[in-house]
Amino acid sequence: MANITKKVSWSSRADESGATGEGTPLLNGSEQPRHSRQLSEGRSIFQIGRLSTVDLEEEITSEEDSLRGRPKEIPHNEKLLSLKFESLDYDNIENQLFLEEERRMSYMGFRCLEISRWVVCGLIGFLTGLIACFIDIAVEELAGFKYQVVKENIEKFTEVGGLSISLILWAVLNSAIVMIGAIIVAFFEPIAAGSGIPQIKCYLNGVKIPRVVRLKTLVVKVCGVICSVVGGLAVGKEGPMIHSGAVVAAGVSQGRSTSLKRDFKIFEYFRRDTEKRDFVSAGAAAGVSAAFGAPVGGVLFSLEEGASFWNQMLTWRIFFASMISTFTLNFFLSIYHNKTGDLSSPGLINFGRFESDSVAYNLYEIPLFIAMGAIGGLLGALFNVLNYWLTIFRIRYVHRPCLQVMEAMLVAAVTATVSFTMIYFSNDCQPLGPEHTEEYPLQLFCADGEYNSMATAFFNTPERSVRSLFHNQPDTYNPLTLGLFTLTYFFLACWTYGLAVSAGVFIPSLLIGAAWGRLFGRLLAAITSSGSIWADPGKYALIGAAAQLGGIVRMTLSLTVIMVEATGNVTYGLPIMLVLMTAKIVGDYFVEGLYDIHIKLQSVPFLHWEAPATSHWLTAREVMSSPVTCLNRIEKVGTIVDTLSNTSTNHNGFPVVVQVTGSDEPAKLCGLILRSQLIVLLKHKVFVELARSRLTQRKLQLKDFRDAYPRFPPIQSIHVSQDERECMMDLTEFMNATPYTVPQETSLPRVFKLFRALGLRHLVVVDDENRVVGLVTRKDLARYHLGKHGLEELQLAQT
Amino acid sequence: MANITKKVSWSSRADESGATGEGTPLLNGSEQPRHSRQLSEGRSIFQIGRLSTVDLEEEITSEEDSLRGRPKEIPHNEKLLSLKFESLDYDNIENQLFLEEERRMSYMGFRCLEISRWVVCGLIGFLTGLIACFIDIAVEELAGFKYQVVKENIEKFTEVGGLSISLILWAVLNSAIVMIGAIIVAFFEPIAAGSGIPQIKCYLNGVKIPRVVRLKTLVVKVCGVICSVVGGLAVGKEGPMIHSGAVVAAGVSQGRSTSLKRDFKIFEYFRRDTEKRDFVSAGAAAGVSAAFGAPVGGVLFSLEEGASFWNQMLTWRIFFASMISTFTLNFFLSIYHNKTGDLSSPGLINFGRFESDSVAYNLYEIPLFIAMGAIGGLLGALFNVLNYWLTIFRIRYVHRPCLQVMEAMLVAAVTATVSFTMIYFSNDCQPLGPEHTEEYPLQLFCADGEYNSMATAFFNTPERSVRSLFHNQPDTYNPLTLGLFTLTYFFLACWTYGLAVSAGVFIPSLLIGAAWGRLFGRLLAAITSSGSIWADPGKYALIGAAAQLGGIVRMTLSLTVIMVEATGNVTYGLPIMLVLMTAKIVGDYFVEGLYDIHIKLQSVPFLHWEAPATSHWLTAREVMSSPVTCLNRIEKVGTIVDTLSNTSTNHNGFPVVVQVTGSDEPAKLCGLILRSQLIVLLKHKVFVELARSRLTQRKLQLKDFRDAYPRFPPIQSIHVSQDERECMMDLTEFMNATPYTVPQETSLPRVFKLFRALGLRHLVVVDDENRVVGLVTRKDLARYHLGKHGLEELQLAQT
Repeated sequence: MANITKKVSWSSRADESGATGEGTPLLNGSEQPRHSRQLSEGRSIFQIGRLSTVDLEEEITSEEDSLRGRPKEIPHNEKLLSLKFESLDYDNIENQLFLEEERRMSYMGFRCLEISRWVVCGLIGFLTGLIACFIDIAVEELAGFKYQVVKENIEKFTEVGGLSISLILWAVLNSAIVMIGAIIVAFFEPIAAGSGIPQIKCYLNGVKIPRVVRLKTLVVKVCGVICSVVGGLAVGKEGPMIHSGAVVAAGVSQGRSTSLKRDFKIFEYFRRDTEKRDFVSAGAAAGVSAAFGAPVGGVLFSLEEGASFWNQMLTWRIFFASMISTFTLNFFLSIYHNKTGDLSSPGLINFGRFESDSVAYNLYEIPLFIAMGAIGGLLGALFNVLNYWLTIFRIRYVHRPCLQVMEAMLVAAVTATVSFTMIYFSNDCQPLGPEHTEEYPLQLFCADGEYNSMATAFFNTPERSVRSLFHNQPDTYNPLTLGLFTLTYFFLACWTYGLAVSAGVFIPSLLIGAAWGRLFGRLLAAITSSGSIWADPGKYALIGAAAQLGGIVRMTLSLTVIMVEATGNVTYGLPIMLVLMTAKIVGDYFVEGLYDIHIKLQSVPFLHWEAPATSHWLTAREVMSSPVTCLNRIEKVGTIVDTLSNTSTNHNGFPVVVQVTGSDEPAKLCGLILRSQLIVLLKHKVFVELARSRLTQRKLQLKDFRDAYPRFPPIQSIHVSQDERECMMDLTEFMNATPYTVPQETSLPRVFKLFRALGLRHLVVVDDENRVVGLVTRKDLARYHLGKHGLEELQLAQT
Repeated sequence: MANITKKVSWSSRADESGATGEGTPLLNGSEQPRHSRQLSEGRSIFQIGRLSTVDLEEEITSEEDSLRGRPKEIPHNEKLLSLKFESLDYDNIENQLFLEEERRMSYMGFRCLEISRWVVCGLIGFLTGLIACFIDIAVEELAGFKYQVVKENIEKFTEVGGLSISLILWAVLNSAIVMIGAIIVAFFEPIAAGSGIPQIKCYLNGVKIPRVVRLKTLVVKVCGVICSVVGGLAVGKEGPMIHSGAVVAAGVSQGRSTSLKRDFKIFEYFRRDTEKRDFVSAGAAAGVSAAFGAPVGGVLFSLEEGASFWNQMLTWRIFFASMISTFTLNFFLSIYHNKTGDLSSPGLINFGRFESDSVAYNLYEIPLFIAMGAIGGLLGALFNVLNYWLTIFRIRYVHRPCLQVMEAMLVAAVTATVSFTMIYFSNDCQPLGPEHTEEYPLQLFCADGEYNSMATAFFNTPERSVRSLFHNQPDTYNPLTLGLFTLTYFFLACWTYGLAVSAGVFIPSLLIGAAWGRLFGRLLAAITSSGSIWADPGKYALIGAAAQLGGIVRMTLSLTVIMVEATGNVTYGLPIMLVLMTAKIVGDYFVEGLYDIHIKLQSVPFLHWEAPATSHWLTAREVMSSPVTCLNRIEKVGTIVDTLSNTSTNHNGFPVVVQVTGSDEPAKLCGLILRSQLIVLLKHKVFVELARSRLTQRKLQLKDFRDAYPRFPPIQSIHVSQDERECMMDLTEFMNATPYTVPQETSLPRVFKLFRALGLRHLVVVDDENRVVGLVTRKDLARYHLGKHGLEELQLAQT
C-alpha cells in the first residue's frame, strides 16, 4: 500500500494543471484556454491580501485571552474575517461506525429516540421558563425595594430641601448594583456581555463561538442581567433570555455537564453538532417565547436566524419547547401574583391589552404608519452608527476588565443623574387616577393628588414604562416630556449597549420608539382638531415602538409576529409589518442592523442566506482553498501527527485519498476525515504495527467519539512515541466515505446553496477524474459579500 | 469526435462492472467482494415487482382522459407509485446560457428583479383577496336568497300543514344549485374537485400535477365552490381559497396566460420551476390568509407543506402576500358591510371574539383538553377510514362524469332531507334573544318569541353555525340536539368529501368538532354542579373543533397558528397545540391524514421530510435507476430523436458524457440535459451540419426556452427530416455542466437529504472514475416508506 502523504503543493499549481492537460487530455479541451484565462484573471484580482484560507483551530491557540479583549487580538475592522472561529459540522459524518449503528437500530429504537427528543424539548422549555420566572421575580423584588428606598428618601427631602442627597443615594445604589453585574461579566465570563443574540445567531449559523453555551456563561448571564436591570440601566431582560434558553438546551440535550464533571449517561446519541444545533434552536425559541409570551414568534426567530433546512417534526418540537416555556413562566408567575392557575397572562414583557374597538386603524392611517417606519429606520440607523463608533472606541481603549467595570458604573451613575435631573426640572404634573396604574408615583413638587409624569417614564423598570406609554390616558404626558425623554433615553441606551454587562436592547428600543410614537400621535391629534378618536396616542406609541425596534435590529417576520403576539391583537399585523418593512429598507440604506454590526466587528465568518447576487462569475476554482493536505487511507501515524501539529496550516478537515499500488495514476478521493476524529484515534492509539505483533487495530466505538465531544484535546496534549510514529493507521472505518463533492466549474451560488442547505463545513472540489484539487470551507464563502461598489472580498486574518 | 450514443444497457450490468474491475482496478478493491455481495442481495429483494424506475413523461400519453377517471387508469392501490407524474425542477439549470445572463446582469438588475418579485407578491395577495371577497359576497347573497325563499315557504306551510312541499322545494333548490357546480367540475375540469390542498401539497413537494395551476381550473374552482356552499352541502369555502391563491400566483408570476394566449412580455425571468414555486408558495399562503384571516398561519402552511429550504427574504415576501391578501379582503368586505375603512375584521371564516376573561382556562383543564384531543383523533381516524373506503368505491364505480353529477345531486338532496327531518323532529325551542344573533331563525312549531335551535345549526351556512356553537349562550342547545347534529353531520361531511364538486373539509370538521365539544362542555358542567364558570361550552366547542380538524387533516404548527389567529386570542395557543398534538398521535396510530390518503390513492410520488428511519442500509446503488441513457456532448440528431421518441423508457433527464477521441477509456460525466431542453433545441433546429454548408449552430437564447415553458411540445409534434437526422447537435452550451453527483456507496438518507434540501429532480450516481452508473429520480426515493412491518417498497406502475 502506498503510504505517502499526498500534499498537492499549490506553488506548483500551474505545473500541475499543465501536467493534467498532458497526461489525461481534458475532454472538453476545446474550451479550456478561454476558461482558464478568465479564471486566472479572476484569481489575480482576488488574491490580493489573501493570507491563508484554511479552516483554523482556535482552541489551541488563545481561547482564554482572545476573549478578554486584548487590543491586538480583537479586530476592529469589519473588512476582515477572523480565522480563529471554528465551524460546526451540521452534516452527519456518515462513516462506517455511524452507518453500522444506524443499521443495527430497530424501528422501535428510532421511535424511542424521537420520544427522547420530545422529552428533551419539554425539559428545555420548562427550565427556560423557570429561569425567566426567576429573573422576573428577582428583578421585581429587588427593583421594588430599590425604588421604595429612593422614593421614601426623595419624599423625605422634598419637604426639607437637599434633594441632592437623594440623587447621590440613587446614583450610588445604581452604580453599586451595576458594579456587581459588570464584575462577574468582565472578570469571569466576558462572552456573557450584551444580549447574546449575535452569539446565538452565529452558533445557529454554524460558527463555533467558544464558551457560548456553557453553564458558567448561563450563571453569569442570569446574575448579570438581574444586576443591570435593577441597577437602572437603559436595558431590558428579554434579549438575554434567548441566550439563556440556548445554553439550557445545549446542556440538557447532552445529558451531562462538562463544567460540573457529571455525565448522566443519557442522550448520548445527541452528542454531535447536528442534533445539538436542533436543540439549541429550540432553546432560543423557548427563550423568545418566555421573554415576549410569543411562542410562534420564538419558532420564527429560530428559523429566521438559524435553520436552513425546514423540517416539519423539528419545527413542531421547537414549537413545543416554546409553548412549554411560556406555560411554565405563566404558571409560576400566576402563583407569584396570587392568581394560581390563571394561565392567560403572557411572558416577561407584557404590552397590555389593546382593545380592537378603541384603537382600530383606518386606511388613511397607513401612509402615516409608513412615515413612522421611515423615521424609525432613520433613528435606528443613527443609533447603530453611534453604537458602531462607540464599539470601535471600546475595542481600542476600554479593553481591560477593570476599565470596563468602571465604564459600566459611570453609565449607571450618569443614568441616575440624568433621570433625576429630568424629573426634577419637569413640571408635567398629572392627576393621580383612581386606578393607580403607576407603581411608584412620585409627587415631588406637584400638588397633592398629582404625580410627576416624567417620573413614570424614568422612575420605573423599562417594561412598566413601555406599558404606561402604550396605555395611559391620551393626556398623561405632555409633548415636552415625551420629546425630552426620547432624546435622553436614546443616547443613554446607545451608550449602554456594548457595556460589559449582560443586557438586551429590545426594551430600550421599544421605549424610545413608544415615546416618540406617542409624541407623534399627540402632535397629530393636535393638528387634526384634537380629540378625534383615530389619533389615539397609545396606538401610535405601539407603531413607533415597532418602527424603532425594527430600525435597530432589522428583524423581519419573527419581529412582526413577536410584536403581534405581545400585543395579543392580530389586527395590528399589517401596520406592524409595513412599519418594520419600511424601517428595514430605510435603515439598510445607511448601515446594517445592530447585531450584524457586532458580528462583523468580531470578524465572524457568517454565511448569509444566499450568495451575493452578482457572484455568478466566480466558480469553485477561485473560491476554494488550496493546496489541500490529503491523507492516505492507510496512513503513517507520524505523518498524521505532523500534519495535525503544523500550526501554520491548522486544517480541520482532510480529504482521504487512495492510490493503487504500483500504479502511477494520481490518487483518487475516497473520503473525508476531521481533525477531531484523528485526535480521538491518536488518543486511543488505534494503530496497526507493521511488525505483526499487534496486527489487529483496536476496535473503536462511536461512544469514544461521543465521550470526547465537544471538547477534543489539542494535538499537543497527546504523546506519541517514536515507535508509534512508525505504525500505520487505517482510516477506512472512520472517514466519511461519501463526502459531497463539486467540480471546479461549479458557480459560487451553486456551491453556496449546497453549503447552506446542507450545513456543510468542508466541501471537496474534484476534477473530472475524481482527484482532489481544493477544499471549500465556510470562510472561503463568507469572504465574498456585496459592498457599496459591487462584490467585495474580505481579507482573512489570524486575529 | 465520437458520436455514438452511449447506452449502458443493464442486461450487461454484470459484464460491465466486471470490465470496470479489469480495465481500471478499483482503488478500494480489497473491500469490493463483501460490498457487492451485500448489495446484490439487497437488489434481489428489492427488484420484485419493479417494472421500471425511470422518470416518465405523461403529457404525451393520456393527459386528457387519465383525469376523467377511466377505471383502469386510476390506481386504487396505495401500494403503487404512478409513473405518470412528472417532477418539477427546483434546482436551477446552470448552463452556459444561464450563467452568461447572470454574469451580464448588473447589481441594479438584481435589485430590479427583487423589486418585481415584491410587486408580483403584492399582486398575488391583492387578487387572492379579491377572489375571496367575491366568493364570500356571492355566497352570502345567494345563500341569503335561498334561505329566505325556503324560510318563507316553511313559515307558510307550518300553519296550513303540508311541510313536505317545503322539503321538496328545499331539496330541489339544493340539488339544482349543486348540479351546476358538479357539471362544471366533472365535465370541464375534474382537477378542480375537492379542496385542492392535496394537489397544492404535491405541487410544492415537486410533483407536476397536470392542469392544476391553470386559469380554467381557477374559474371552475371559484364557481364550483360558490355552488357547493350555496347548495347547502356540508362543505366549506376555505380549502379552495388555497388552491385559488396558488393558481393566481402561477398566473401572475409568469406575466402571461397560456389559456388566453396573452403574453405581457413581463416577468420573463420568472419562467422556470424554481421561481414559479416560490410564487405558488406565496399564493397558497395568501389563500390561507384570506380564508382564515391568518397571515402568519398562511406563511407557516406554505412552509410546512412546501418549502424545503428556508430563505429569509422569500419568507418575508410570502408574508407580504399574505398580509396584502387579508388586507384586501378586509377592506372590500368593510365596504360591503358598510363600515368602509374598518380593517379590523378578519378573513372569510371568523371565529368571533373570545374574551380572555370569560373563557380563561386553568391548569386542571389541561388533561380534559388532552382527552378531547384523543377523541378528536379517534373520530378523525374513523372519518378518514370511511372516506377512504368511499373513495375506493368511487374510483371503481362512480367514474363517469354523469354518474358523478348524479351522486352530487343525490348528496345535496339527502343533506336537505336529513336537515329538514332533524329540524322537524327536534323540539329544542329557545327564546329569541334580544340581540338576534341568528340570521334566519325558524319558528316552526315553537311558541312565539322562540326559535328552533336545531335549525340554527342546519339552516345556515356552515360558517355561521360554527360561530353560533362557539359563542351562543351556554344553554342555547340541548345535549340531544348537539349529539344528533354531530352524528348526522359527521356522516354527511364524510360522504360529501370526494364528490365531484369543489369544496373544502375545514369548516365541516370544525362544525362537527364544535358540536361534540359543546356537548362535552355541557356534560362536564352538568357533572360538576352546573353553572361553574370554567366549563364554558363555547371554550369546549373551540377545543373540540380543533381536535376534530386536527384528527382529520393532521396538520401541526400551521393549524395551531391558524386556529389561534382565527380566534384572535393568543391565550389558547397551548391548549390548541396540545389538542392537535394528541389528535395527531392518536389518529396516526390508525390511519394517515385525509390529504395524505388522497395523495396516496392517486399514487403520487410524494417525498416526505426525511428518509425512512431504518433505511440506512440502503445505498444509492440499490436505489438508483439503471441503465441510464446517456448522450454525447456532440450528439447525432437522429440518436436524440430516437431516444426521446422511445416510449418504453420515457426518460426526462439525460447525463451528458464525453469520450476522448481515439481513447478506449470509458466516457466521463460532463453534464446533464433535460428532455424539455432537447425538445426546444430540436424545435429550433439547432444543428451543425457536417457538410460544412451550415457550420455555425444557430444561436439560441434563454428566451427561447422561457417562451416554451411550461408547456413543451411532445417529441411527436416535431418533424425532423432524414437529412437533419444526420446532423450533429452540440449540447455544451445548454447542458447543466455541474450536476450534483454522489458515489454509489452513499446511503439513502444522505441521498434523500441532498434531494430534498436542494429540490432536485435528477441526481447522477457516478463511480470513482466519474463515470455514470445510475440516476436517482424522485420516484426512486418515494418508493421506500415505512409500513407496519418496517421498510416497504412501493411498486411502480404506468397508471
